[in-house]
Amino acid sequence: MPSAAGRGQGQDRRPENEDSSAADDYAKERYGVSSMIQSQEKPDRVLVRIKDLTLEKADEEVWVRGRIHTSRAKGKQCFLVLRQQQFNIQALVAVGQHASKQMVKFAANITKESIVDIQGVVRKAYQKIGSCTQQDVELHVQRIYVISSAEPRLPLQLDDAVRPEVEGEEDGRATVNQDTRLDNRIIDLRTSTSQAVFCLQSGICQLFRETLIRKGFVEIQTPKIISAASEGGANVFTVSYFKTSAYLAQSPQLYKQMCICADFEKVFCVGPVFRAEDSNTHRHLTEFVGLDIEMAFNYHYHEVVDEIADTLVQIFKGLQERFQTEIQTVSKQFPCEPFKFLEPTLRLEYREGVAMLREAGVEMGDEEDLSTPNEKLLGRLVKEKYDTDFYILDKYPLAVRPFYTMPDPANPKTSNSYDMFMRGEEILSGAQRIHDPQLLTERAKHHGIDLEKIKAYIDSFRFGAPPHAGGGIGLERVTMLYLGLHNVRQTSMFPRDPKRLTP
Amino acid sequence: MPSAAGRGQGQDRRPENEDSSAADDYAKERYGVSSMIQSQEKPDRVLVRIKDLTLEKADEEVWVRGRIHTSRAKGKQCFLVLRQQQFNIQALVAVGQHASKQMVKFAANITKESIVDIQGVVRKAYQKIGSCTQQDVELHVQRIYVISSAEPRLPLQLDDAVRPEVEGEEDGRATVNQDTRLDNRIIDLRTSTSQAVFCLQSGICQLFRETLIRKGFVEIQTPKIISAASEGGANVFTVSYFKTSAYLAQSPQLYKQMCICADFEKVFCVGPVFRAEDSNTHRHLTEFVGLDIEMAFNYHYHEVVDEIADTLVQIFKGLQERFQTEIQTVSKQFPCEPFKFLEPTLRLEYREGVAMLREAGVEMGDEEDLSTPNEKLLGRLVKEKYDTDFYILDKYPLAVRPFYTMPDPANPKTSNSYDMFMRGEEILSGAQRIHDPQLLTERAKHHGIDLEKIKAYIDSFRFGAPPHAGGGIGLERVTMLYLGLHNVRQTSMFPRDPKRLTP
Repeated sequence: MPSAAGRGQGQDRRPENEDSSAADDYAKERYGVSSMIQSQEKPDRVLVRIKDLTLEKADEEVWVRGRIHTSRAKGKQCFLVLRQQQFNIQALVAVGQHASKQMVKFAANITKESIVDIQGVVRKAYQKIGSCTQQDVELHVQRIYVISSAEPRLPLQLDDAVRPEVEGEEDGRATVNQDTRLDNRIIDLRTSTSQAVFCLQSGICQLFRETLIRKGFVEIQTPKIISAASEGGANVFTVSYFKTSAYLAQSPQLYKQMCICADFEKVFCVGPVFRAEDSNTHRHLTEFVGLDIEMAFNYHYHEVVDEIADTLVQIFKGLQERFQTEIQTVSKQFPCEPFKFLEPTLRLEYREGVAMLREAGVEMGDEEDLSTPNEKLLGRLVKEKYDTDFYILDKYPLAVRPFYTMPDPANPKTSNSYDMFMRGEEILSGAQRIHDPQLLTERAKHHGIDLEKIKAYIDSFRFGAPPHAGGGIGLERVTMLYLGLHNVRQTSMFPRDPKRLTP
Repeated sequence: MPSAAGRGQGQDRRPENEDSSAADDYAKERYGVSSMIQSQEKPDRVLVRIKDLTLEKADEEVWVRGRIHTSRAKGKQCFLVLRQQQFNIQALVAVGQHASKQMVKFAANITKESIVDIQGVVRKAYQKIGSCTQQDVELHVQRIYVISSAEPRLPLQLDDAVRPEVEGEEDGRATVNQDTRLDNRIIDLRTSTSQAVFCLQSGICQLFRETLIRKGFVEIQTPKIISAASEGGANVFTVSYFKTSAYLAQSPQLYKQMCICADFEKVFCVGPVFRAEDSNTHRHLTEFVGLDIEMAFNYHYHEVVDEIADTLVQIFKGLQERFQTEIQTVSKQFPCEPFKFLEPTLRLEYREGVAMLREAGVEMGDEEDLSTPNEKLLGRLVKEKYDTDFYILDKYPLAVRPFYTMPDPANPKTSNSYDMFMRGEEILSGAQRIHDPQLLTERAKHHGIDLEKIKAYIDSFRFGAPPHAGGGIGLERVTMLYLGLHNVRQTSMFPRDPKRLTP
């Protein structure tokens, strides 16, 4: 039996239309709309997690808080599906000792997505309940109180929002388009798919940092409001800053490099990166999360490339180990081959990539950059030949990289720079940076950059600078490509693009 | 003997003025300016860390890379102090079998802060070397090559930059003022104090996340460019966004709350927070790093307060355990009492705080906010009475908190809100938030807020919202106050205030 405290907080606001019948309602204390939880009291009540409601708890009396996922009244019974994050259970309110017909009616009228507290007994289900995650048990409801009501008209249905596209097309059943999802992100984020995507994304950040801290890296915080546009001023957002104006950082690179010049040796940072590019593609955002690395090396930038590649490999392995449930959940809606990678990571030179593309019929010059279709094609060719979804392309043509990229001493047309790819799409761009102020000045001039504007940058290297290299990873892209999703807006909680600033 | 690879990369650029005497220089291969490291080769050479140069390595031949911290020539000898992060060692170049007089002269002329590769033999020191961290050994130099030269005139001297203020004042020795430090941040960050401060700050972030992930929290990423100013539009930076304008988020609060409404239950985020306040104080920045927490609770917001307070306690304990060296290093320049805290954390009600202040002679009203001097005074009173540098002040007057703060159901003049303090300064502000759209509307009206502007915010709670509470911690303040420093600019790598946008 519930204790006095077990009654919970002020369950005395009765639905008004029930008042007339309240007199002959023997269950009237057992349901209702709870008064708003304002921290009136600290009841001595344990709320059990839905995922923990298994056969082991059979015949136990429990309190559970969850959302009404679906509700179906049928004569003297009402079947509810009660949801909590990625888990759900069937709950039955049936006229009998605990529930009156008024109580069943009340339960049946609770709007979907409302949050309720239920006291009930866990019972073995007569047969497996295929539509719930908790298939072996159901909850026989003894008390039900609404904690927070949802408005009756939902902007989208959760069941529609997790339906695979194909199934929707074949059966003519509803799916939800992307703008509706994003406009009503709070509801869309409640789906099992979204819950899984963003738990996994949290895991990527965690694994990234865990790995780097183990490798002796230090986390730094770099400013986002900067006084000068880092790369010449294109694609940069302007901010009004008191009586002057400033810019939003397009990358933390200058600051990472300053930390290297300040002897931190190995640094990383995780933070927003801003790009005022009017690109409306599946993989561009105007604000995304950068996982950035910079590291002093001894003699060869491959020391850094190896550390970065291993960090990504540790992320892939960690996800496999710790987030298998989430990967499976997402694949129910978005089926996809498991992500494959090699150890150590495959490293191809740019010229080798170009040769593979030419062999496949692509015409391109030695110093030409990879187009997006060619990137994807090369990804497929590499997958066929080497059976990996992750590889490094090293030694890019000097001509297609920024001015601060270290030229390759062995070949005037190439550079000590690299990109990394997942499923044929770029997720990291990096290079050995020029640490010599004289060469940096020459290269900036060669690129026609106004030296006055980058004076502070060049001056950073005048007081002894170790050779160093680094790179920046796009978090949303890694999440998207690891899970085999098709739009970076699926892996950004509140995406920003040239046309979207809300919610 | 060094291997062929051990010679390193292209050490053939001889200082020009040495050319004439090169012919009779028997050590001419053993020193010089190395050509720029462009990843020409991958020599099979291990560089030993300076901190690992101890008596155990006595009489071993090693290669070391470090900066010239100081240099002192004396007849046929040159004493160098070689520095690597917080560690340094004495190195001796002396005319003899390995070094010629030209080589000693070369070594003596290397500018301070230049980076060099040295091959030498570790020798037991005749007597403790008090001025170095490696006091028992010195390095007898056999080869020395400059990897990256520093310009001869340094904008500040590292030794001045770590001198305690008091010592500077007493002995008339130089210290470095804050603007000089910040203008030349790369050099200032090389000091042992700065290295320690920012390693410890990295540790705070790590401990914050470790603790919360262990508690079942999920990390979220919230957008910094937003379409509407969150709290009425004061103190907000404007961004031009394609053909429209947008704002920089003053806090991730709305997004944290949306994640709670989207069933993530317990979330945290670490990221920049922007405040366009023209406050030029020791503790205000226009951009700082927020450690933010939001959590759904069952019945009482103290469930959340307890989790946040415990998270801070875990940070304090972790710092004590893992960062003792850094704490000691900082205290050499900035002496300070060790940080004290209680378990569980002391929680006082606002009215109790006011009573303590009144007892100490302060005149203030029940619903008046704490001024900064009163905050500090209360911190001292609490320290005297309870012997703790960390405490919670709970149940602030409703009148001094934002409109979305949950009123206290037991007292119309107070609210379910709290601040947390370290050494008498506020480091966290938080509250139970109103999760009911009707009450939220009422409170917004009461505060005279334009309902149209916060419609999206209020609508977030229309589809079932659990009771929840949270708070935001200022990273730079926690670092400053834990270490007993006096200005938040000491704990922000590249601080931003109304007057500073660079570097």
